[in-house]
Amino acid sequence: MSMQDACCAGLASAPLDEADATELARVFKALGDPVRLRLLSMIASREGGEMCVCELTPAFDLAQPTISHHLKLLRQAGLIDCERRGTWVYYWALPSTMERLAAVLRAPQRAGA
Amino acid sequence: MSMQDACCAGLASAPLDEADATELARVFKALGDPVRLRLLSMIASREGGEMCVCELTPAFDLAQPTISHHLKLLRQAGLIDCERRGTWVYYWALPSTMERLAAVLRAPQRAGA
Repeated sequence: MSMQDACCAGLASAPLDEADATELARVFKALGDPVRLRLLSMIASREGGEMCVCELTPAFDLAQPTISHHLKLLRQAGLIDCERRGTWVYYWALPSTMERLAAVLRAPQRAGA
Repeated sequence: MSMQDACCAGLASAPLDEADATELARVFKALGDPVRLRLLSMIASREGGEMCVCELTPAFDLAQPTISHHLKLLRQAGLIDCERRGTWVYYWALPSTMERLAAVLRAPQRAGA
């Protein structure tokens, strides 16, 4: 079960099955930490779309390996992706994953409503 | 900082400050568990809007206190509320919290876009 499949039925439309719930919970869990939410919002709101890890780290009073670990969890959840270029790793957001979560949380469009 | 205040700036609009990130992370963390997601979707999708705890428990291969603990975390996150009536506790969803999270995850409406 991928995020693609789990995307379209809202939480309020029908009870989630176990597979969809497991997949969605993994992504929500990645968002369930203040440092990861701030990292994601820094990357996602960056005009131009990319951010160097060297720009992210100074915003936090945390060691570089801790920041890298949080970034890895965001990447594993499909919320960001990255690429190494020369000395630095560059990160960008994957808005489709956020859009799918938003769709899951949105109230259902009831027939006749 | 309440969910009310943290509602309106999307993750992709501007970097979150620490207080907003802490408040939002608490709610996302509550969604970061498959059992809690299934409980929430069972309650939120219930026609008529309410669900007795006695209807929720049989859907899971878990002890009643475990289910109650998950329901408590959903309630503390502002995703559901409940009331005792006679023998049973009845639960209902608070869609405004889900709508606010959906708004946070939604892509920004850029000026001129």
